[in-house]
Amino acid sequence: MRQVAVIGAGKTPFGAFPDKDLRTLAVEAAHKSLANAQVDTGTIEAFYLGNFAGPGFTGQNHLAPYISTALGMIGIPSTRYEAACASSGAAFFEACLGIASGMYDMVMVAGVEKMTCQPTPRVTEILAGAGDCSTEVRAGSTFPSLFAMVARRHMYQYGTTRAHLSSVAVKNHENGVLNPDAQMRKVITLEQAMNARPIAEPLNLYDCSLISDGAAAVILCAADRAHEFSAKPVKVLGVGQSSDYMALDQKPDITTFSAVKGAAQKAYAMAGLGPKDIQFAELHDCFTIAEIVAMEDLGFVERGRGGFFSAEGGTRRVGPMPINASGGLKSKGHPVGATGVAQICDIVQQLRGEAGERQLERHSIGLAQNLGGSGASCVVTILGRD
Amino acid sequence: MRQVAVIGAGKTPFGAFPDKDLRTLAVEAAHKSLANAQVDTGTIEAFYLGNFAGPGFTGQNHLAPYISTALGMIGIPSTRYEAACASSGAAFFEACLGIASGMYDMVMVAGVEKMTCQPTPRVTEILAGAGDCSTEVRAGSTFPSLFAMVARRHMYQYGTTRAHLSSVAVKNHENGVLNPDAQMRKVITLEQAMNARPIAEPLNLYDCSLISDGAAAVILCAADRAHEFSAKPVKVLGVGQSSDYMALDQKPDITTFSAVKGAAQKAYAMAGLGPKDIQFAELHDCFTIAEIVAMEDLGFVERGRGGFFSAEGGTRRVGPMPINASGGLKSKGHPVGATGVAQICDIVQQLRGEAGERQLERHSIGLAQNLGGSGASCVVTILGRD
Repeated sequence: MRQVAVIGAGKTPFGAFPDKDLRTLAVEAAHKSLANAQVDTGTIEAFYLGNFAGPGFTGQNHLAPYISTALGMIGIPSTRYEAACASSGAAFFEACLGIASGMYDMVMVAGVEKMTCQPTPRVTEILAGAGDCSTEVRAGSTFPSLFAMVARRHMYQYGTTRAHLSSVAVKNHENGVLNPDAQMRKVITLEQAMNARPIAEPLNLYDCSLISDGAAAVILCAADRAHEFSAKPVKVLGVGQSSDYMALDQKPDITTFSAVKGAAQKAYAMAGLGPKDIQFAELHDCFTIAEIVAMEDLGFVERGRGGFFSAEGGTRRVGPMPINASGGLKSKGHPVGATGVAQICDIVQQLRGEAGERQLERHSIGLAQNLGGSGASCVVTILGRD
Repeated sequence: MRQVAVIGAGKTPFGAFPDKDLRTLAVEAAHKSLANAQVDTGTIEAFYLGNFAGPGFTGQNHLAPYISTALGMIGIPSTRYEAACASSGAAFFEACLGIASGMYDMVMVAGVEKMTCQPTPRVTEILAGAGDCSTEVRAGSTFPSLFAMVARRHMYQYGTTRAHLSSVAVKNHENGVLNPDAQMRKVITLEQAMNARPIAEPLNLYDCSLISDGAAAVILCAADRAHEFSAKPVKVLGVGQSSDYMALDQKPDITTFSAVKGAAQKAYAMAGLGPKDIQFAELHDCFTIAEIVAMEDLGFVERGRGGFFSAEGGTRRVGPMPINASGGLKSKGHPVGATGVAQICDIVQQLRGEAGERQLERHSIGLAQNLGGSGASCVVTILGRD
């Protein structure tokens, strides 16, 4: 397949922004990505928008042209991609195929979500639409309770502890403090993390990611043309998407997500790389347990060892496998439809050596893992310096 | 680009089906498309779902894996595409790029919408989400009123009459009577059509398409492999997607949709064909005026002549340019997310000579035009016999 490069990346800060609507956020991120790539909208041949539940949160549907026309991009294909919290990961994946097909040389991929305009119970209800509403959600499950079941089973099978879970939160908050765009820039202690109020046991407040507004965008270009536009293009070495059953009760083992393994296998195969070649990663820590399960499913550690590895500091910025140096969904924030592309932006920043205080020592090859629902969708992307 | 063929097509009947939920409908259409292609789910490498507002109508989001796993398709990319009423047209377009990229040899594209589970005022509100909610919808516009403005202006500029509009409805009902899957199989007279109760003047009841449940699916294959699977493959000769401003007040002339012209130009260019080469078409007659505007934007008639051409019988099955031999959205029904793929199914049936009583005499090259919103999205596809 024709190779693809990222030549520009831009994000809004993540947080609660009552004065910025969904379109304003998306346009801001898009303009930053264009400025970063030093191209203008006239060169963009298609617009790929990742968004999970804009119509539910804001009432506005048909979001792709709603945003692309506000950017002055008229007459191009403009479509919204939805795969729950992996929506902008899926948009990114499709954009790579669009360039690979030869149809385009340059496209924009954006992700956006505006969540804080709804009260928290309604947010929880809208998010629950990513689960199986005919079974588990109908029975009362919401995402904290679904991941609580994953955590409980992981504890039972592998000896993972509350302290293991909390170590993920402590580390991601430690990183987020250094990220000027993060929603919650606050150091927390292990004791604080372990003793916060329960949400869905064994998960407590600090095991859960945030409700956020935010947007992110990247400019993709055919790799053979990337040097025309960027002195620091980043190559898409591999990208894979996979899917699985929606409901936890349909999975033979809820401590592993086959869609993550499948997406990773495809991305590794395309890149000709394996887990040992990955130097750092942005993983989908919608809940602390999700980061632990992801590092196992991606092959960074042996099955069942994720909690131990995390508690030992293995995933800290100075550890052997830095994970979520951005602060992750836990501290950076999680505007669901924006998260996949935001992860790509964070990887690009690291690869270029532009991550400021968060800059990692080894930064040639990074991986992003974007999860949808309780494992029904996953996109894995491996990026490398050109 | 690598060429793409349609090797299977299947649809549910369109109508109000209180006993069939969204997933049941999609699965039924998918099974029909697989049986028609004589392939099984194991050969499908990706699932492309077109759906506009499933979460709004039913509460269930993350619809692609919700449906693909019910078909037993696990581990493949599975994403939902949204471009208002052009959602499954957009999914079809992306699927063509997916095959063209070399990533896949065979994929399934489905479209589905379950609308009758909500009361009509709520349906109208959900559909209005495809307009600009920050301006025209906020001011009270719904789609009947938006297209009423288009109709009124078309009348003013070109002398189009109420009888012209009604001639579209009469012809589409005449065709739908012969379609066993159509929602409203009922002949209407010109007098009936002209004197029905007003909805948004000058549009009345018979100028508006229907609120429907339904699904459609096609199996796409790399053209160079199509003959392995099908004795009657259909070639995608050209496909194009375009976009434009959402709100009518942003368009310099509301009697023409630049996204339709743009999508058509791309599709014609890819096919190496022009309007005169098209033998029949399925156009997006969400309202009678939309069919008239579409035939002008596609170049079938001169600007302003669409109403006259229709009233003269030019678009009847026996006319020089048969349009909506299926009955169109007006009589066949309009489950919005299904419509784009359903149009492809209708064209495929004609190309294969399998359209029964609706079979057209000239059936080598057909065109499908799928519109989103009041012209903000459009996908045009040209299909031909192999």
